[in-house]
Amino acid sequence: MAKEITSRNENYSQWYNDIVIKAGLADYSAVRGCMIIKPYGYAVWEKIQAQLDRMFKETGHQNAYFPLFIPKSFFSREASHVEGFAKECAVVTHYRLKNDASGMGIVVDEDAKLEEELIVRPTSETIIWNTYKSWIQSYRDLPILINQWANVVRWEMRTRLFLRTTEFLWQEGHTAHATRQEAVEEAERMINVYAQFAREWMAMPVIMGRKSEAERFAGAVDTYSIEALMQDGKALQAGTSHFLGQNFAKAFDVKFLNSEGALDYVWATSWGVSTRLIGALIMAHSDDNGLVLPPKLAPTQVVFVPIYKSREELDRISSVVSQLRNELHAVGVTTHYDDRDNYKPGFKFAEYEMKGFPIRIAIGPKDLENGTVEVARRDTLQKQIVSSNSLGKFIIGLLDDIQNNLFSKALEFQRQNTTVVNSYDEFKSVIAGKGGFVLAHWDGTPETEAIIKDETKATIRCIPFDSKPEEGKCIVTGKPSMQRALFAQAY
Amino acid sequence: MAKEITSRNENYSQWYNDIVIKAGLADYSAVRGCMIIKPYGYAVWEKIQAQLDRMFKETGHQNAYFPLFIPKSFFSREASHVEGFAKECAVVTHYRLKNDASGMGIVVDEDAKLEEELIVRPTSETIIWNTYKSWIQSYRDLPILINQWANVVRWEMRTRLFLRTTEFLWQEGHTAHATRQEAVEEAERMINVYAQFAREWMAMPVIMGRKSEAERFAGAVDTYSIEALMQDGKALQAGTSHFLGQNFAKAFDVKFLNSEGALDYVWATSWGVSTRLIGALIMAHSDDNGLVLPPKLAPTQVVFVPIYKSREELDRISSVVSQLRNELHAVGVTTHYDDRDNYKPGFKFAEYEMKGFPIRIAIGPKDLENGTVEVARRDTLQKQIVSSNSLGKFIIGLLDDIQNNLFSKALEFQRQNTTVVNSYDEFKSVIAGKGGFVLAHWDGTPETEAIIKDETKATIRCIPFDSKPEEGKCIVTGKPSMQRALFAQAY
Repeated sequence: MAKEITSRNENYSQWYNDIVIKAGLADYSAVRGCMIIKPYGYAVWEKIQAQLDRMFKETGHQNAYFPLFIPKSFFSREASHVEGFAKECAVVTHYRLKNDASGMGIVVDEDAKLEEELIVRPTSETIIWNTYKSWIQSYRDLPILINQWANVVRWEMRTRLFLRTTEFLWQEGHTAHATRQEAVEEAERMINVYAQFAREWMAMPVIMGRKSEAERFAGAVDTYSIEALMQDGKALQAGTSHFLGQNFAKAFDVKFLNSEGALDYVWATSWGVSTRLIGALIMAHSDDNGLVLPPKLAPTQVVFVPIYKSREELDRISSVVSQLRNELHAVGVTTHYDDRDNYKPGFKFAEYEMKGFPIRIAIGPKDLENGTVEVARRDTLQKQIVSSNSLGKFIIGLLDDIQNNLFSKALEFQRQNTTVVNSYDEFKSVIAGKGGFVLAHWDGTPETEAIIKDETKATIRCIPFDSKPEEGKCIVTGKPSMQRALFAQAY
Repeated sequence: MAKEITSRNENYSQWYNDIVIKAGLADYSAVRGCMIIKPYGYAVWEKIQAQLDRMFKETGHQNAYFPLFIPKSFFSREASHVEGFAKECAVVTHYRLKNDASGMGIVVDEDAKLEEELIVRPTSETIIWNTYKSWIQSYRDLPILINQWANVVRWEMRTRLFLRTTEFLWQEGHTAHATRQEAVEEAERMINVYAQFAREWMAMPVIMGRKSEAERFAGAVDTYSIEALMQDGKALQAGTSHFLGQNFAKAFDVKFLNSEGALDYVWATSWGVSTRLIGALIMAHSDDNGLVLPPKLAPTQVVFVPIYKSREELDRISSVVSQLRNELHAVGVTTHYDDRDNYKPGFKFAEYEMKGFPIRIAIGPKDLENGTVEVARRDTLQKQIVSSNSLGKFIIGLLDDIQNNLFSKALEFQRQNTTVVNSYDEFKSVIAGKGGFVLAHWDGTPETEAIIKDETKATIRCIPFDSKPEEGKCIVTGKPSMQRALFAQAY
C-alpha cells in the first residue's frame, strides 16, 4: 500500500494529494473547487474543533450563528473590505427554478429574480456588524465575544484539497469592545490561542507576528498571523487575528454610550482558522509512508492487529485485546481492533501507516504465551516488544513521547530552514535554493515588498513579535530598517 | 419582565415570538427569512447536537461533509425529488462582482456567468449519491453510514423563527445498504433514535408512525416521522426518516457486486432533524412567564442569586456560593452566579424565569445563619427552603423531578388532546374546536386525504406504528379501513 504514494522528493505536491486521497481524508466533488471531507478527515476536524471550542469558551466566548447570505450592498460599506472580498464570490440572483418549456429538465425562473443579489458569505464582518448595531447601545452591552462555526465560499481560481477550496469550513470570532486597548488585547489573546493550539495540539511550531500593510486583512487596522513552515520549505499561514479598529463600526454606524456618557464608535476584532489546518497538519509531519498524526488530534490513537492462523488463536487473542482495550479506554486512550478476516496483517500494517494511527499493537500466539505485545510507533516506525502488564501507563507515556517528538522534529526543521540574510543576492539565492523562512531587513514600504514578491515570489509572512529591534539596511533599497521581517514563498 | 410577554390565551403566536426574542434565543436578520441564532439559542442547539451526535455514533455512524452547492442538473435525475425540492431554492448564477461603471457600489459581472447554475442545497441526497457512485463497487464497501451537520436553504414564503426559516441548521444522515431489509431496519432504527431523544432529552412525547403517500418525502418509498403536539393543539413534525428504496441508486447509477457476484442497485435511507426542534422545545413546555427548558437540554441548570445589602454581606454570600457551585460541578450540574450589582434580585428572578433556567437558588444573610438556601423550580414556580448540606444530591434529584414532571405534563396534555372520532361531523367539530390529535378511519386514498385537508386544514400526521389493526369505515367515503390514521392541523 505504501508503495502507492509518490515520494516527497519525486513530487511534493503529488505526495500531498496522494496522502489526502489514500488516507481517506477528502475527495474531489462534482462541484468545481469544492471538496468532500470524508469521515476520517472529518474526524480530525472534529478533534480540532473540540479543542479550539474549549479554548474559545475558556477565554469567555460564546457561539452563535449568522445568515449564510449577505446583501450585496453590505459589502460596499467598508471601502477596503469590498476590494478584498466582494469580487470572487458566489452570487445568488434567483430564488426559483421551473420546468423547462420542452419538459426536459429545469431552468431558472426569470420571474423569481431577487431585487438585491445575495452573496454567499466569504467572511461575516458585514452581516454581523449590521446586527451588532441593534444589540449595542451602551458600554453595559460590551464586550460582545462571539464565535461562529460555519462554511464560507470564496471563488478561488486554483484550488487544492484542504489548502484552498471554494467552500471551506472555519470558525470566525467577531468581538465588540468599548476601548481600543481592549480590542487590541483581544486580537493578541486570540493569536496566542491559535499559536498555543498549533504548538501543543498540532505539534506544529509557528512564528507569531504582525502582517505588513500589503498582506493585511481587507478592513483591518492590524492583522496578526501564525506562520508554519512546511517540509518543502514553503510557508503556510495557519491562522489570523485582526484588530479592526472602528472601521466596521463606522461602516455600519455602531455607536455606544460610553461610561462618561459620550457617544463613541465601537472597537472590533475578528479572527479565524479553517479546514486549511488539516492541510498544514498533513504537511507538517507526514512521510513517504503516508499520514503522520500527532496523538492529541488522531481520531484513533492505538490500533490492535491480531496475528493468527486458526479461529481458535483469533478467539484467544480477541479476548486479551478486549481486556487491553478496556484498560486503555479507562485512561482515556482511543483504540480500534481490526479483526477483519479477509485482509492479511501486512496489508493492515500498511493501511494504518497510511492513515497515521500513532501506535499499532500486534499480538500473536507467542505474545499470548509470553504476556507481551509488539508496539510500533508511527513517527519513527520503531517496534518494540512490551509486557502487556500495565500497558495503559506505557501507552500514555509513548503517546506523550510521540507528540513531543513530532514537535521537536518540526521545530528542528524550522530552525534549520530559517536563514538570516544581509544582502538581496543572498536572499534570492536562499529563496531559490533551500527555501524556508528568511529573515531580512526591509525598509517598511509596500513598494519594496512588491519588488521582492515580483522577483522572488517570496512575501513577508509577518514581522515576528519576538524579534529584537536591530538596526540595519533594507536588502533592496539600503534604506534604514529597525527590525527584520520574515519572508518566504507561501501557500 | 414577565409582564412584557403576551399570554398564550391572548395570542399564542405572539407569545411564541415574544419568548424567542425576549429569552434571547434568536433574532431577525437583514436577509429575508433568515434568522440569527443568538448565543443562548445556540447553546441549546449545542446541547441538542452533542446528544444526537452521541446517539448517531453509538449506532455506528460517522460524520462527513459534502458541498453546499449542487449542480442544477442533479435535481432532474430523480423525478419526484425535483418536484419536491428544486423549485423554491437559492440559485447561484454568477461568481464575480465588479465595480459599477458609475463608481457607486458593485454589480454582478455578467462575464462571470456559470455554465450550469448551482443550487444551494435544500437537502443533499443528489450530491451524496453522485459521490457514493465512486465509493461503492462491492458489498464489501457497504454499509455506508454517514451523517452530516450542515446548513440548508429552502426559499420559504412564510417564515417563523426556528419553525420555518429560509436557512436552517440540521443534520442529515445518508446511508447505503446491500439489502432492502437492512435499509428498512436502518430507517426504523433512526426514527426510534429521534423518538428516544424527543422523549428522554426534550421531555416531549411524540407519536411515531408512517407518512401517507401525499406527505412522503420527495423521492422516498416510505417516510417515518415523529409528531409532537404543541400547546395550541397543533401538531409539529419533529423529525423524519426515509426508506429511499433504490430510487437514488437508480437515478445516479450506483450499483454494487453483491455476495453472490451479481450486480444490483444499492438501497438507501436518509433522516434528519433541524433547528426546528428548538421551536418544538419552546412550545412544548413554556408558560406565560417565559421559556421552560428541560434540565437535560438547559445550557445552565442552576443560577445562584445573592440577596444582600452591604458589600460585606455579598462577600460572605459569594464565598458560600463558590463552595456550593464546586459541589454541584463535581456532580455534573452546570451553574451560573449572577452577582451583578446594578440589577435587583427581582429583576434577576424575572430574567431567569424568562430564560427558563430549571433551578434558581437565592441566598441571603438569614440563609447564611441557618445554613440554608431558597430553591425555586422553574416548571412549577414552587419555592422551598433547603439545607445547604449535601445540596448536590438534592439538586440532582430535583433536576430529575423537573425533567420527569415536564414529560408527564406534556404526555397528559397529549392524552387529553387526542380524540378518537367515528364520523366526519365529529372530526370537523373537534378540529375546529379543541384541536389536537384526532384518530379516525380513512380509506387510504390521496383523494380523501385531500378533501379532508381542503375542508378542515387537518392533514394526516402519520399512521402510528403502535396503533392496533381495527376494522372500520372511512369517515368521509364510508369505504373500509383497517387502521386509524392520526390527523391534526400542523405547523
